[in-house]
Formats: sequence, structure tokens, C-alpha cells
Amino acid sequence: MPSSNITDPARPDPVPFAVPLGDPAGIGPEITAKSWVMREARGLPPFFAVGDIAALRAVWLGPVQLIETPAQAAAVFPDALPVLQVGDSHPVTPGTPTQDGALTAFQSLEVAVGLARQGSAAGIVTAPVGKEQLYGVGFTHPGQTEFIAERCGVSAHNAVMMLAGPSLKVVPITIHIPLADVSAALTVDLIRARALTTAKGLQRNFGIARPRLAVAGLNPHAGENGALGREEVDVIRPAVEQLRAEGLDIVGPLSPDGMFHARARETYDAALCMYHDQALIPIKTLNFDEGVNITLGLPIVRTSPDHGTAFGIAGTDSANPGAMMAALRMAAESARARLAHG
Amino acid sequence: MPSSNITDPARPDPVPFAVPLGDPAGIGPEITAKSWVMREARGLPPFFAVGDIAALRAVWLGPVQLIETPAQAAAVFPDALPVLQVGDSHPVTPGTPTQDGALTAFQSLEVAVGLARQGSAAGIVTAPVGKEQLYGVGFTHPGQTEFIAERCGVSAHNAVMMLAGPSLKVVPITIHIPLADVSAALTVDLIRARALTTAKGLQRNFGIARPRLAVAGLNPHAGENGALGREEVDVIRPAVEQLRAEGLDIVGPLSPDGMFHARARETYDAALCMYHDQALIPIKTLNFDEGVNITLGLPIVRTSPDHGTAFGIAGTDSANPGAMMAALRMAAESARARLAHG
Repeated sequence: MPSSNITDPARPDPVPFAVPLGDPAGIGPEITAKSWVMREARGLPPFFAVGDIAALRAVWLGPVQLIETPAQAAAVFPDALPVLQVGDSHPVTPGTPTQDGALTAFQSLEVAVGLARQGSAAGIVTAPVGKEQLYGVGFTHPGQTEFIAERCGVSAHNAVMMLAGPSLKVVPITIHIPLADVSAALTVDLIRARALTTAKGLQRNFGIARPRLAVAGLNPHAGENGALGREEVDVIRPAVEQLRAEGLDIVGPLSPDGMFHARARETYDAALCMYHDQALIPIKTLNFDEGVNITLGLPIVRTSPDHGTAFGIAGTDSANPGAMMAALRMAAESARARLAHG
Repeated sequence: MPSSNITDPARPDPVPFAVPLGDPAGIGPEITAKSWVMREARGLPPFFAVGDIAALRAVWLGPVQLIETPAQAAAVFPDALPVLQVGDSHPVTPGTPTQDGALTAFQSLEVAVGLARQGSAAGIVTAPVGKEQLYGVGFTHPGQTEFIAERCGVSAHNAVMMLAGPSLKVVPITIHIPLADVSAALTVDLIRARALTTAKGLQRNFGIARPRLAVAGLNPHAGENGALGREEVDVIRPAVEQLRAEGLDIVGPLSPDGMFHARARETYDAALCMYHDQALIPIKTLNFDEGVNITLGLPIVRTSPDHGTAFGIAGTDSANPGAMMAALRMAAESARARLAHG
């Protein structure tokens, strides 16, 4: 991978990635700063923080430099973490979220999305927000993904959350609903929409020309032909057959417990899962510190470390920047794949 | 581990383990024979096959020797795979199950349980059966485990299936039911019964003096205090609190996706899971070829490789004996732990 953070006078500066810092009292500022420290060792693309510089100064003594526009980020990046200040600076106590902090997080996300849509940022890598805190300042979306989708003019239905690690890529077809509600939420249309967006997303963001999808069943042993549940027969298999008829390379419904071991994983590029933990258990079992949340179906590149604000450890210098660094690398790969894919 | 398969004239022969061969047309005979070949390299305890010698001869050219009683097994074991013939011999075509074969499987299981109860066998290690085939010959239990429990005078409710591998031990609290029925099947009493049997089973079979149990939630993020499902608040937490008050070292309900990575696994001896795939996905992701099914709560030792008959590959010499060997080793460890535990 070419080291994209060395300025070459013969070439224009690379377009940097925007990193909205998330909740200033969470671990977002710390993992962003730690990632900047590792920028060369890990071959990270140039990026700039979007948020309140006070959040970085509260947890980090390293070099930060305010920038006026994203265009200045690449030149600053080798020597300091560039910061695009959003709103006024407010006192930050790591681990203690505030209304001011939540408002900064909200506005930072909005600014970052706007910059990516204009092309001033190559994409956005979002640090974790506190949803409860955001709800307190007028945020009405279920999460950052839905907000970003709307700001990009994409219906939340068509913005697909994929969790991607070195060992596995998974897409949960239903997400934050009670397990008992999953069966009723599954429809042929929903599975088709998620599968089509996933296939297209694997092409655009990962450069996989002909993506292979594996679809999980819902029930033990994928229902044993209806003996242990009807969803495979009534919903999942019809969806898979329709998608195959439309030309997708897709198999399933597979027995959920037999599709995530090493040999099985070699047979597909992404697994479509029926519920949150069917997707999250295997990827977090395998890639706990490196899981990246990447949103498929958007006009912009968007990744995120697959963890929360971790208020409980904020300010203790113990946050692991692994997932943030993986999210930055995946954003860079995705941006390159999109250029190649056209 | 002492090599228990070398005869020492100064010591009585060790009590061998009984291996009912399961469906003669499945991979049971092949993995049993392959395990015998590896008996010294893998430090396996002495064992004898219970079933139809024709099933072994159909897939294996190595030495087999009929025995009249289990007492002869240890002397034969170094030179040939001892076989206790059950019923008449019938032609066996690997991959093509028959009624005669199913009847042999049924009777072999019955014989093996009887020998273990008498003490002529140190325990039983069951090869896979075809449930459909068994139902055709009058078997009325949901699976081998329930049958064995009944023959041991234990209610199926109190015989607990644990899946154990080198990386993880899990107990599914509900098993072969549709996912949509799990919520209604969970009760405080059921969770308590499974947890108590599990804790006792870890002591008796694994020699863990004070077992640490981790209990999974049912819903995404363990329900977020009711926002994503009420089962944690209404059922799981009360069960855990009651068990803790009774002296168990138990935590939960935990977020299901965060409890199976390497660091998390270090904090408990077994995970209690609310449904089949919550337990089976992580263990098969981690230990696909070495998963052992061990039944807790029985007066006898009973283990089994955690896979099915694999009729599709029977007779092709491609079955992996890893899980069968792990089941034999775990049976031996369990028998030793029981002796030590008293």
C-alpha cells in the first residue's frame, strides 16, 4: 500500500477522511489520537478530526492543530492531528457526558457528512456517540447510520449495516429489535433488499466483482424442512431462490451453527444473518478488537469502529484503537475500490 | 496422562468405554475405527464398539475382534478394535440407512447404557444416529440424550446437554425448538435447573471446585434494560439473582455478542445460553472439528462427538475423527474426575 500521508509536490494532496469525534466524553477522542500516532506504522490514510479540540486536549498531550478547511488537513497530518472545530469549545470531563457534548457530537456528524457529500472529505469514519445523550438534544434517528442515510438522500431501508473483520463479513437483516419479534419482521422483500444492497456494496466497497453470499436460516438446523420452524420454508428460501434467479451467487438458508467455522467462511464473501446476534456473535467471537461497521448503499464512504462510547474507561488511556484503525484502513480501501469501480 | 491402554500385569485391566456405533450406514463406524488407529498417538482410553461388526468391515480393513464381554476389551484393545456384537449381522451400504441398521443402532445404545450402569463400561461415547431412521423403528425420544436419561432414571429435564471444546463450554437452555418459541419457553425454574445441573456437572465431570457461570441475555445488548425486550428483566435476571443468593458464582444476563471472545471466555467456566444457536454458533465457530457433547446430570459418563451421521460422505473415508477422539478423551477425563470427586 503506498504511504498516502507523505506529501509529493508533483501530486495533489490526497483527499483526507473526516473523523467526527462522537461524544467528547467517550473514548472517541482517545482512539482518534492514538490512531494518528500510529498513522505511519499502520499505513493509515490522512484524516482530520471534526469536533471540539477540548475533547482531544482532555485526554491527550500530543500535537493537534486547528484547520479552517479540509484542504489543509493533508499538509498538517504528518506533524499534528488536524482538527476542524465545530461550535464553541466546552469543558470536557472524560466519562461524564453533557448536553453541550452531545450537541457537539450531533453537529460534528452533520458537518462531516456534508464535507463527504461535497467531496472535501474522502469519506467519514465516525467515532462512537451516546444515543441517550443524542436523544436529549433533538436527535430523532435510531442511530448514526440512519441519520447519515437520510442526509445522503437514501432511505434507511436501503442503507445496510455490514460488520467486517479480517475473518468474516456479516449483514444482520433485522437489527435492534427483541428476539421474539424477529420472525414477524422477516419478509421476502426485506431479505431481497438487504441482499441486493450487500452484493452491490461488496462490488463497490471491496472490489469483489462477483460476490458470493451465504444466507443463514433462522431456526436450529435451518428448521429441518419445517419441523423446527417455518420461516426457512415460507420466507427465506423463496427470497434466496428469487435472488438466484436474478443472477446473484447466493446459497441458503444454511444451518446457522455450521456456517462460521474457518472452512465454511472460505465459501462466501458475506453472510446475511436474520438477527443481531446471529451476525454479531460470530464476528465478535473472531474479531473482537478489529470489527468495523461499514454502511453499504450510501453515495459516500462511511465506516466506524464496532464499539460504543465506553464512558466507563474514558480518560484512563486504556481504550484500544484497533477497531478505529481498522475502520480508517477500510475507509481508504473502500474509497480506492470505488474509484476503480467507477 | 498415563497411557491407559498398555496392559500392566501388576494392575487390573482398566474398565473400557462402550462406543455404540450409531447408524451403521453413517460415519460412526469409520470415526470409531480411525480413533482406534490413533489410540496411542492421542492417548485414548481403551474402548470397544457396540453394534454390528459388518458396519465396521464395510468401511475398514483394519483388525477387529469380537468379544463376549466388556471384560475382554482391554486385553484385545492394543491389537484390534474390540466389538460387542448386537443382534444379527446385516449387509451395510454406507450412506444408505436401513430399518435393520436403525434397529441395531437402537439396541446398541440400550446395551451400552446397561453396561455403563452396571459398571462393566466406564461410560459411553455415542456415535451419531439418524433420528428419522430411529423413529421408524419405535424410538420415541427426541434424541439419544433423553433416552439415556430415562434409562438412567433421570428426568430429561435434569439431563443437561453441554457442548465442550478446547476454547469454550456452552449449555443451551432451550434446544430444538423454533426460535420464535424461545421467549415463551424460558422460565426462572428452567434456567435455575439448568444452571444448578451445570455447576454440579462442572464439579463432577471436570473437577472444577467452584465453577464460574456466565448467563447470556436473550435480546440484542441483553435487552438494554427492557428497551429491546423484557426477558432479561422479567426472567433471566431474577433467575441469576436467585442462583447467586444460593451461593453460585454466576454473572449475567450478559450481552450475547460480547461474551465469546478470547478475553471474555477467560472469565467463566461455562456459558448458559438461551437458545440453540446462541450456544452452537460460538462453539462451532471456534471448535468445529473438536466439539464434544457431554451430558451432565447423569449417574454415568456420557459423551458424543458433536456432529451427525453425515450419510452424504459415509463410505468415502473422508470423515474427520477429531470430535470422536475428543469425546473419548473427555469421557476418560470425566471418569477420572468423578473418581477423584467421589
